[in-house]
Amino acid sequence: MGKISSLISSTVGKYLLDRLQQHGVQHIFGLPGDYVLRLDKMIEEEPSFQFINATRENTAGYMADAYARIRGLGAVCITYGVGINITNAISQAYVESSPVVLISGAPATGESRNSPYLHHLIPDTTQLEIFKHITVDQAILSDPETAQQEIDRVLESCLRYKKPVYLELPRNIIAAEISPTPSKLLTESSCDPKKLARALQRVRTLLQHSKRPILWIGHEVQRFGLASRLIDFAEQHRIPIATTLLGKTIVNEHHPLFIGVYQGKISRPEVSQFVENSDCFLVIGAILSDMDTGMFTAQIKDDKSVLANADRLIIAGEEYSEIPLTSFLEALSELSMQKFEEPKFPKKRSESFSANRKPITVGRMFECLQTYLKPEHMVVADIGDALFGSVDLMLSQNSFLACSYFGSLGFAVPGAIGAQIASPKRRIIAIVGDGAFQMTGTELSTAVRYHLDPVIILLNNRGYGTERPLLEGHYNDIVNWNYTELPKLLGGGNSIRVSTEEEFAKVIKPTLEKRGSFTLIEVEIGKQDFSPTMQRFIKVATKKIRD
Amino acid sequence: MGKISSLISSTVGKYLLDRLQQHGVQHIFGLPGDYVLRLDKMIEEEPSFQFINATRENTAGYMADAYARIRGLGAVCITYGVGINITNAISQAYVESSPVVLISGAPATGESRNSPYLHHLIPDTTQLEIFKHITVDQAILSDPETAQQEIDRVLESCLRYKKPVYLELPRNIIAAEISPTPSKLLTESSCDPKKLARALQRVRTLLQHSKRPILWIGHEVQRFGLASRLIDFAEQHRIPIATTLLGKTIVNEHHPLFIGVYQGKISRPEVSQFVENSDCFLVIGAILSDMDTGMFTAQIKDDKSVLANADRLIIAGEEYSEIPLTSFLEALSELSMQKFEEPKFPKKRSESFSANRKPITVGRMFECLQTYLKPEHMVVADIGDALFGSVDLMLSQNSFLACSYFGSLGFAVPGAIGAQIASPKRRIIAIVGDGAFQMTGTELSTAVRYHLDPVIILLNNRGYGTERPLLEGHYNDIVNWNYTELPKLLGGGNSIRVSTEEEFAKVIKPTLEKRGSFTLIEVEIGKQDFSPTMQRFIKVATKKIRD
Repeated sequence: MGKISSLISSTVGKYLLDRLQQHGVQHIFGLPGDYVLRLDKMIEEEPSFQFINATRENTAGYMADAYARIRGLGAVCITYGVGINITNAISQAYVESSPVVLISGAPATGESRNSPYLHHLIPDTTQLEIFKHITVDQAILSDPETAQQEIDRVLESCLRYKKPVYLELPRNIIAAEISPTPSKLLTESSCDPKKLARALQRVRTLLQHSKRPILWIGHEVQRFGLASRLIDFAEQHRIPIATTLLGKTIVNEHHPLFIGVYQGKISRPEVSQFVENSDCFLVIGAILSDMDTGMFTAQIKDDKSVLANADRLIIAGEEYSEIPLTSFLEALSELSMQKFEEPKFPKKRSESFSANRKPITVGRMFECLQTYLKPEHMVVADIGDALFGSVDLMLSQNSFLACSYFGSLGFAVPGAIGAQIASPKRRIIAIVGDGAFQMTGTELSTAVRYHLDPVIILLNNRGYGTERPLLEGHYNDIVNWNYTELPKLLGGGNSIRVSTEEEFAKVIKPTLEKRGSFTLIEVEIGKQDFSPTMQRFIKVATKKIRD
Repeated sequence: MGKISSLISSTVGKYLLDRLQQHGVQHIFGLPGDYVLRLDKMIEEEPSFQFINATRENTAGYMADAYARIRGLGAVCITYGVGINITNAISQAYVESSPVVLISGAPATGESRNSPYLHHLIPDTTQLEIFKHITVDQAILSDPETAQQEIDRVLESCLRYKKPVYLELPRNIIAAEISPTPSKLLTESSCDPKKLARALQRVRTLLQHSKRPILWIGHEVQRFGLASRLIDFAEQHRIPIATTLLGKTIVNEHHPLFIGVYQGKISRPEVSQFVENSDCFLVIGAILSDMDTGMFTAQIKDDKSVLANADRLIIAGEEYSEIPLTSFLEALSELSMQKFEEPKFPKKRSESFSANRKPITVGRMFECLQTYLKPEHMVVADIGDALFGSVDLMLSQNSFLACSYFGSLGFAVPGAIGAQIASPKRRIIAIVGDGAFQMTGTELSTAVRYHLDPVIILLNNRGYGTERPLLEGHYNDIVNWNYTELPKLLGGGNSIRVSTEEEFAKVIKPTLEKRGSFTLIEVEIGKQDFSPTMQRFIKVATKKIRD
């Protein structure tokens, strides 16, 4: 932070790559296209980068999103116009705070002067017009003179807000020469110490009147790199920790202070009971979306809460402005206070599993999987019961990825690929429903290409299972693919279909141990089989949908 | 037109369906989702409609686009937020003038009043904000009182401009009761007869000074239903006809007046020579994009041209405002004038083909295919040599679909599905490269589901072939799938791989004759094998890309 770095750069494109590399980016996901070929070539020729070809733009976006959540910055590179196929992936990154740099080629400056009717262009609008709704900062690098400062500003916004940004490079500018000046890395935003002290005093008062405070922490704590600080604070004062769903695994779930994922009435009853019995709620880095609050059934008493996130700080109902989350948490962690009494933790669930010959259910699949999970495993869950069933897995820190708030189907397979590239030492397990798999499952082609070996657990319930109890119809059915044929189509990977507990138990251990190529385990489950969390979700959501 | 229709409707959703049905829509493509389930159910229960499930939103969009190009109106129905996966398909429909009604569910009115943090929502923006850039009219039907007039207005815009529109139905409004009043169908826009007469006089003068006029007609002529009128006019006055690439098959290509597809230096030399030797250019319903003008190499003399399309009318360099294309063409077709002299047409290409045992080339594949084509065949071409190779196929009227101007990869397979649903008596042949096929080829799942039987000719040149000569790199390579395994994955369809002329010739005839399920013919071609049209394209484009 604040360090002066010396850069040896010579072109706009190379300067951008240098800056990305400084922030830990070594892979750029994307697809080539005529407006961006020169940049693709530049990436290919840069020894410190690898260009990762996806089969299409939105899956490239999901990969970059997963990479960014793990590494703190990700990048995806598309061609102009048709690249807007990535809109949904970038929206998801925007909503869930994933710092993705979206780089697009574009027609040369002046190229559309004679005629605006160029292929991939939309008359009367621009890509920027669309992407500005789903990115926090944008620049069209049409002038090499200002390219450096534009790149610096936009990257700084990406890192400051942990949200996607958009950089557009006209194709004649990519290789334009520039002489960059030494450039400052991101500096922290400042905070008025008086305001901070006043806020802290209020928090201290709240806590002093509390006997059973609880920390309920959300995804922003992970995005802003504040987890260890917050966990230290919890340990010092013996404050129990729950996470939101989107914040799952910010803390090691075997940590003695960890209670569970709290989602109001959707949580396990012992978790919701524990949380709701608290008399002070430190809600940190959470957005309080419908998904994170159990469709707004979470019971957090405003007058006993600290709600701190990237956008705002509210203490006991009073808003404190201009206090960045980082400054607040730094100060909070230095609060010197009493240790709270040892809370009476809910009993941990048993982790033993004894397989029988019965057809496997979603709930039992997760129980069985749990017994084989190790700290190096990372679970990437798609939407539906892949997500709901995962909620109660006990995982180590930073071992879970899911787009559980924006909630588009199809993240898990490309997300698993992005995750393994970001974190090659982790063993990635993607859990995905059949509906989501039909959207993006062939992206396993990219696993074949780059010799990646995620384990894919495909929960086949023959349709959009989450929707059946909401309003059933043929539109919830899908074609029952022979999923285990996929490796033959792609020319790589393995597959197996299981339908009983014994079969799954027999297969999962060796699959997790064997490395080298992807394995797809198709788990046949009933159309009306739902995990316990899903059952609670259905109860809460059905009424809402039909209202 | 102008007819009063009586409607028996009772809810907002049903009124919308009734209006769509009046305009020939019988199928609605889409995916279900919690914000739109009620409408999905309504469609399912309406006997005159079929809901066609796609595997994901953008392919549903391509299907609706193909359907709209054939039937004059199409509709696609998505859920909120994650439905923006369809952005690219709608952009393509917008750019290429395809009248698609994009229907989206949405949170209930007031649902986000307490908290904007609902799943699938993007804070600080709306779907409307994104879709307004790529649709000509929009409405959020948040008030049942005004829903009828909003629906009427938006549908009228769709039909008037032949461009996509956006209708958003909050989930609590879908079944809201309304008492619709009898509603006027679309009325024509008016035109000042004096302005029109002045324009026509100018055209007459141009034609009177011409010996070799030519009609160069574009896609808008098809979209606005003006083809027969224009062809009659050509026949009356013996004016030869060329089309743009996007306008291909507006006229039966076996018509004695048809010259070919004209694209400047990219056309066959005899076509460009013929067109460029003309002394009067009637350019009707064309956009003159880079793709339609051979990267702006078309040589149309401004002072001898009539440029008439939906947006403007320019005669010999002078703009005539407020004259709708339809009014202009109606008046033009009534011009009484001399018949021009019989032009010396370029020699038609031979349609005979004798297969040998050599590896098949793209050019020879198209020559062979030509010999088996019948009037009921319709070709849907993807981007790349699937498109360029198709240019010189001689096809019957309205027998070709390709998104040759916006040019996103992956239209052909879902487009073929939409085309067969729109036009069940036609035999659909999709031609697609391997890069495009990896994007959307598994949408053949939908062909299996609805018992459709397109023939898919997959040109496998192991990568993004069009880009190799522009700037080669590993990013142009893709994984070489075992494409013929796809029917096993999907549980339907047939497949075969061919690599010689003889093999292709032996397979194509019985494949075109056999009905019942899709057939995928994988044609192995060389990485550096390009059709004659592609070779000319490369020559023109390479310089541009590297500039």
